[in-house]
This record gives sequence, C-alpha cells and structure tokens, in this order.
Amino acid sequence: MIAEQPGGIGVFDSGIGGLTVFKALRDVLPSGERLLYLGDTARVPYGTKSAATVRRYALEGARFLAARGIKALVVACNTMSALAIEELEKTLRIPIVGVIEPGAAAANRASRSGRIGVIGTAATIGSDAYTKAIRRHRADVQVTARACPLFVPLAEEGWVDNEVARLTARAYLGALSGIDTLVLGCTHYPLLKRVIGEEIGPGVTLVDSAEATAAVVRGRLEADGLLAGAGGDAGEDHFFVTDSSERFHEVGSRFLGRTLARLELVSL
Amino acid sequence: MIAEQPGGIGVFDSGIGGLTVFKALRDVLPSGERLLYLGDTARVPYGTKSAATVRRYALEGARFLAARGIKALVVACNTMSALAIEELEKTLRIPIVGVIEPGAAAANRASRSGRIGVIGTAATIGSDAYTKAIRRHRADVQVTARACPLFVPLAEEGWVDNEVARLTARAYLGALSGIDTLVLGCTHYPLLKRVIGEEIGPGVTLVDSAEATAAVVRGRLEADGLLAGAGGDAGEDHFFVTDSSERFHEVGSRFLGRTLARLELVSL
Repeated sequence: MIAEQPGGIGVFDSGIGGLTVFKALRDVLPSGERLLYLGDTARVPYGTKSAATVRRYALEGARFLAARGIKALVVACNTMSALAIEELEKTLRIPIVGVIEPGAAAANRASRSGRIGVIGTAATIGSDAYTKAIRRHRADVQVTARACPLFVPLAEEGWVDNEVARLTARAYLGALSGIDTLVLGCTHYPLLKRVIGEEIGPGVTLVDSAEATAAVVRGRLEADGLLAGAGGDAGEDHFFVTDSSERFHEVGSRFLGRTLARLELVSL
Repeated sequence: MIAEQPGGIGVFDSGIGGLTVFKALRDVLPSGERLLYLGDTARVPYGTKSAATVRRYALEGARFLAARGIKALVVACNTMSALAIEELEKTLRIPIVGVIEPGAAAANRASRSGRIGVIGTAATIGSDAYTKAIRRHRADVQVTARACPLFVPLAEEGWVDNEVARLTARAYLGALSGIDTLVLGCTHYPLLKRVIGEEIGPGVTLVDSAEATAAVVRGRLEADGLLAGAGGDAGEDHFFVTDSSERFHEVGSRFLGRTLARLELVSL
C-alpha cells in the first residue's frame, strides 16, 4: 500500500451512484485537489433502511475517511444527506456538504410557478428533508414528494429505456401533475432521465443535484481558504469500496471514462 | 430482556423472506420445538453482493445464533445457502440445512422431462449451486438458470400482480422455454407466483423450497435424535432483526397471521 498524503476531499456514497457527484467535483476543482471516494457497496442500498441504521453507517464511513486526513467531506448520497448531516457535523470538525441543500436551491432557481416535485428513495422522502430545504428558500412554494423505490433496481439492471421503466415511471409520476420542476433526489435517477422526462412531460425542468453540489463545495472551500492551487498534482484520486471491487471497477471506469487506478477493498 | 432457554432451532435469513421457511417449519415441527429467527434486515439484500461478503455476513449471523445455544441451523436464504453452507459447516458444530438441496430434490421429483428452470438472485444464479445440486440427483438433466434481480424489489413494493410485474416476468422468463419445472430460487419469489405461473405457462410446475426444506429439517432432527417431543411448550419463538423492527413487525405479523411477541433489534 502506498502511504497516503494527508488532505484531500472525501466523497462518501452508499455505493456507485455518488460517482455522478465525484465527476462533477472533478470538473470544477483544480488538479491540485485530490479526491478520496468511499462507496459502501457491501451495505448498499441505504434508501430502504431505517434512519437509525443510515446514521450509524454514515458515521462509520465518515470516520473512515476522517482517519485518512480529509479536509472536507461531501456526502454524495441523498439518503445520507437527508438523515445524517447534522449527526456528521456534530462528530467531524471539517466542512461537510450534502446534496439536499444544493439541490433544493437549484430547484428554487429553476421553478417559476413555485410548484416543485421531489422524487427519491423511501428514506429520503420519508425524512421530508427536501421539502423543508426548499421551503427555507421560499415559504410559499408547494412541494409534492414521491418515493420511487423501483428506480434504483431498474437503473442497476440497466432497464432505463424499456417498457418496464416507462410503466414504472408512469405509475410513480402520475401523482406529480402541475409541477414545473422535478428534483431527481437520488444519484441513480439521472440514469432514467430520458424516461422520467418523457413521462413527466416537456414543461418540467429536471434538477440533478450533482453539479449544484460541486459548485457549492468549490465555493465553500474558497470561502474557508481550503482550496488547493490550480498548479501542482496531489496524486491520483483514491477509491475505497466495502464489497468486491470488480463490478465497481467496471462500472466506475465506464462511468468516468478512465481506469480507476487506485481502488481498494476495505471494511468499515 | 427475558433470559433465553438453551436449545431451539435457528432460522437465518437476509431479511423477511425467510419467514416462508419459518412458517413451513412451524407447520411440521412439534410445539415443544422453539424457533429463533434472525433477519439481517440492515444489510439486506444479500443477492446483489459478492460471494466473499455474503460468506462474511453468513458467519456473523450464524455465530450470533450459535451463541444463543441453538441445536440446529436452517439457512432460509437461497443466496447464503448457495454461497456459504460449506463455510458454516466448517465453523459450527451443529446440523445445518440450507434451502438449495431440498429445492433441488423437489425439482427432480417434480420434473418428468428432465428440463428444469431455476430463477434466483444474481449471486445465487452466479454460484451455479442449484444446477450442481440438481445434477447430483440426475446427471442427464438439463438445467436453464436465469437471474431475476427485479423480482425482489417488485415483491417488496407490493407490485406482484400489475402490468410492470407481468412485463418484467415476461422479459426474464422468455429464455426458459421448454422446461416442465421451475424452481423459485429466492424466498421472495412465491409472492409473484401468480404472475410467474401465468407467464411461464400452465404446463410448468413451480417449486418453492420452503416446504421441502421443512421436511428435510424434521427428518434430520429425527435422525440425529434432536427432535423435541410433541408435548411441552418450549416458550415463544424469538425474532431478531438488525434494522428497525417496525416494518418487520407489521409485515411479519401479516405474513404469519399472528403478532410477533418477541421481536428484538440486535447488532451483528
């Protein structure tokens, strides 16, 4: 094992979906900034678990990354962001950014009518975190939220553009009529963007939190004087997974368009 | 906490699906026999995880039950039965019965043509355990296996008899033409029995391992002189779960047609 340099930014997800956030971060952060990605692939999905269990797993993962000297933590998983951010902030003494708040802000910017839909896992929707975050920006907004538990397994099965995906989207999204903006409140959902867009209709803007989150992270690092310079090379990004790394390597490489050189199997 | 009596039979599943096996056991075992059910609901599903992780979780759960003094262990989860039985037999010094071998034997009894289909999780099908077990009984048999990853989330969503379930079954089962027997190699699949039966056609016998497994367990206990007498009451069955017990209580009570009096949240 190569010795770690201290520093770097932790990106923590329940599995592979957080690579959308990783990619968006890589696009806006300087090359001198190193990322440490942790995917808890052994215990994924978090979205069907209870709040107490999600919080326990979030703390275990965050501590794992903190022990590697990260200077900031990005919680790339909507479920964890919805349920565990406060707990993490109490425990870790570094800046922590989740995906809910940036996604809520982006939805408010996108919506003209103030009628916003949110879809996510059962745990995310059950927490009401998006509704509360959106209302903090704009009190008169009307938020309709819907859990879509089958979207994650559909995306993982690669059934993103067939009749099953279409009928599933129709069943879930039927309740969201009248909105002009829809938050894709789960990192897997952008894979189903096409079917979701077609079923919800052309007048609705789809909001994916990844880019909004990356912008917030960059701003926060700058404000705190933590951002590395544009020059310099902090070394290769490091990926940690808790279940067999083969599938992660294959899907992740395809996802990021390059090989994941430093990929390591770890226990939390 | 009430002190445990030693003895009893452990029933171990990744979640709630193993209650089918629990129920079948309760039907054939004397009232003097107490069951201890463990559902690893925090880390469910096992069927999408790697063999190494499934084995690790299987050992942790089995040790938990062994520490409570069980005299035999029933592995009610197909994925664990496919991947971890040998490991468990090396570690625990009590009789262990999985669902694969009884299911394979039942399929062989049911099939006239010797053309048998098997459906299950990605991990179960990837292990080839059913194919090997069926061929041990009858070498000239032709086994066609197919992973059906969406069946578990469909069953958990309660979408067992709608158009999405039907189209999904059609897509998965299309490859299995020509069989006369189909093994439902996952404890969730009996919930989709109607749709599966309609899509695979009336000439195909569906085999659910639960009853076959219960009969094997009873036979094994008798043979080893471990079966309790018909009289006597060993006390109430005990249920352990690793994630919040509320949903388990609700679904489990509906499932078994009675309240789960002793339900406890534990860590593995």
